[in-house]
Amino acid sequence: MYALYTDRYQLSMLGSYLREGLASRRAVFELSMRRLPRNRRFLVMAGIDRGLRYLENLRFTDDEIAYLREAPSLRDVMTDELIAYLRAFRFSGDVYGLREGELLLGGGPVLRVEGTLAEAQLVETFLLGAINHEAKVASKAARVVLAAQGRPVIEFGARRLDPMAAPTAARAAYIAGCVGTSSEEAGFRFGVPVTGTCAHSYMLAHVDDGEVGAFAAFSQSYPSGTSLLIDTWDTLRGAIRATAAGPAVHSVRIDSGDLATLGPKVRAILDAAGRSDIKLIASDDMDEFKIQALLAAGAPYDSFGVGTAIVLSPDAPSFGAVYKLVEVDNRHGKPIPVAKRAPGKASYGGRKQLLRRYNAEGIACEDVIALVDEATEGEPLFVHHMHKGQRVTKHTEAERTKSARALCKSRIAVLSQEQRVIALEESVPVTSAYRVSMTDAVRALERLEDR
Amino acid sequence: MYALYTDRYQLSMLGSYLREGLASRRAVFELSMRRLPRNRRFLVMAGIDRGLRYLENLRFTDDEIAYLREAPSLRDVMTDELIAYLRAFRFSGDVYGLREGELLLGGGPVLRVEGTLAEAQLVETFLLGAINHEAKVASKAARVVLAAQGRPVIEFGARRLDPMAAPTAARAAYIAGCVGTSSEEAGFRFGVPVTGTCAHSYMLAHVDDGEVGAFAAFSQSYPSGTSLLIDTWDTLRGAIRATAAGPAVHSVRIDSGDLATLGPKVRAILDAAGRSDIKLIASDDMDEFKIQALLAAGAPYDSFGVGTAIVLSPDAPSFGAVYKLVEVDNRHGKPIPVAKRAPGKASYGGRKQLLRRYNAEGIACEDVIALVDEATEGEPLFVHHMHKGQRVTKHTEAERTKSARALCKSRIAVLSQEQRVIALEESVPVTSAYRVSMTDAVRALERLEDR
Repeated sequence: MYALYTDRYQLSMLGSYLREGLASRRAVFELSMRRLPRNRRFLVMAGIDRGLRYLENLRFTDDEIAYLREAPSLRDVMTDELIAYLRAFRFSGDVYGLREGELLLGGGPVLRVEGTLAEAQLVETFLLGAINHEAKVASKAARVVLAAQGRPVIEFGARRLDPMAAPTAARAAYIAGCVGTSSEEAGFRFGVPVTGTCAHSYMLAHVDDGEVGAFAAFSQSYPSGTSLLIDTWDTLRGAIRATAAGPAVHSVRIDSGDLATLGPKVRAILDAAGRSDIKLIASDDMDEFKIQALLAAGAPYDSFGVGTAIVLSPDAPSFGAVYKLVEVDNRHGKPIPVAKRAPGKASYGGRKQLLRRYNAEGIACEDVIALVDEATEGEPLFVHHMHKGQRVTKHTEAERTKSARALCKSRIAVLSQEQRVIALEESVPVTSAYRVSMTDAVRALERLEDR
Repeated sequence: MYALYTDRYQLSMLGSYLREGLASRRAVFELSMRRLPRNRRFLVMAGIDRGLRYLENLRFTDDEIAYLREAPSLRDVMTDELIAYLRAFRFSGDVYGLREGELLLGGGPVLRVEGTLAEAQLVETFLLGAINHEAKVASKAARVVLAAQGRPVIEFGARRLDPMAAPTAARAAYIAGCVGTSSEEAGFRFGVPVTGTCAHSYMLAHVDDGEVGAFAAFSQSYPSGTSLLIDTWDTLRGAIRATAAGPAVHSVRIDSGDLATLGPKVRAILDAAGRSDIKLIASDDMDEFKIQALLAAGAPYDSFGVGTAIVLSPDAPSFGAVYKLVEVDNRHGKPIPVAKRAPGKASYGGRKQLLRRYNAEGIACEDVIALVDEATEGEPLFVHHMHKGQRVTKHTEAERTKSARALCKSRIAVLSQEQRVIALEESVPVTSAYRVSMTDAVRALERLEDR
């Protein structure tokens, strides 16, 4: 299960390690962000929990092994020994790292995977994919939530990305502060609150009785609470009709047109009809900048539905977390720190952790990358996630999601004003980048022996 | 299975339609692209096949129904009738549309779904997600393949997106002309050729014998053909060492540094050692622009590994396919074309198809959007995919993937030079947009009755 959600070269290396007698050597890999992506002043870490679930459940099925046996480029290493290895495979390593919902305020380590060389290598692709995807969504969602200044933001993006990636995107957005999602699967699997209104097609489907008939029918279907979409033909007329659709109507949504102008007009119509209780929802390709502009202009929206911007993060579409071997045993069983020297992509060896320091006002002001066995001042951000292939703590999916959300909220509360700025870098440059320092012991590992 | 990979509002509408007696009305929805995304002069359609597979397999499991019964916002409509409806649900409609691998040269319809109002509405989210994702990847991959001018391009992007989305991305890239992927699952499920080299970690893991030992070990593991990564410490020294690693070495990969400068130097080292048979692979965050620049500078690369650019399409990260109700029966069973009027998002009603016209040289020069029952000149691009919930043709996944790839290749061969330009729009503006026309009968449906 999930065993083939990896790159071929992981299996090529595994086959070679087994032949060479290196497969069971102890190794330490580090998943890290070299730097923050453009336009991001902080990242919300997500995807870690899914990575752990993957490690727990990773197995090679008979079908998968049969497929690998026929792969031409693996034929040279496809011995009985390798097949037996794949059959018996379980991830048996230890994992340390940031908690789901933690913030990364500069570059630094995210996870540390300690296990055999073969197992810790094999899992690279999935761990990177899960974290690159979910941290990207969560980090963008946090910006949108900040822009909404306390007004609820609902994630609507399922139709804009691979259907299989939508539930995890919804969960990541929820961790980052969205109040809910449209994705039914995210509710089913992760306990994310699911909400929905109706579509233009619902109005169009009422060919016999038009918008008035559609509004009446929907509010009769949902007497406990109805949300109506009012811009199918004429938004202001839709607003008037919504006020006549009965007391069940608790909100109306506008999905097109000049939202800054329409908002106050619709609000006035609702209020004049004595329906100041009806909330106003804006959707129409929203992002943090449009929300900020609408609120700055005083448009009276109560909540926002956001799709594309949150799930695809178009201004920072790619998150570049990397996964590097940082330590491996030599033939005498002695752990040796290792690092590559490739220009622009050099890495630091050694088993590292991340600590955070706060100023007198309790604002996060510096992160420190230290070796695990160093005594260093600061709040340790790494926890022990997995021991010998088993999670250290047992919780339901819904509990994990809730606790990640609570952590994220508490962390955003102690961000500096500089880091809360949501403007693009070209318009409001970062004047003082968040300080990330390395201890002398970490720096010393940059000067690794040439091989 | 897959039933909850949808938006809540689809189920809210379904529940209301059932109560209103509208659920089984005949309806026609159209999935279309309003226009080409920025920086794209043609789109490669993919995700259609997966959409059809979804429609064939769509079921509500008992667990899923139990979950929906508890959903607060659905409680008002959660009758025994609705539960029975969900239990018995099978998609029973007809689907027409473009073939997988077909090109879209301007805006236009992609799929037409004809069925009951309830079933054709429910499937919106998945169909849009699959096509927005896969068409985005395929369209970007086609540009990268064009830039490589016949040199093989391998898709390496699994670690940059949700792990569940990687196999479909790999398949989409393969349809668009990539020769293979790193994604093992894409080989297993879709028969996409899978290839791989080795990672920097492999070199670093050889702490006892260094790069020389690593090269020797890998070529001993893969005597039928070895690919080595030479930039872990010093690329030129790595090239020299690769020539000494035995005859199994058939390629070397460079993943960092100034590739334009390194390429000729590495080539010279290989040739001087009598190893002109060793191919040179470039990776390092490649995209169509970097490949074009490298080849324009004469850098002697034989193939390219491309990850992020293909799977995330950063210059056009969001594809905006939409799904609109275009026709629905009235209470007398008469089909009524419908369309919304929302500003900037107006749609055209009616059951439509797409036809293509070619000039005397056989170059595609105009697409025509026509009603399905109109006699219109041009090559009809819509085929009948599904009849009463069953595929019209039966093929294996691998056969479907191959035939989509062949179609795409034949279509790209008859593109105009203007459409093959891969430069960004701001540097090389489109001088004459591809012509997409509508027949008079389609235009007449814009003036739909106000409701």
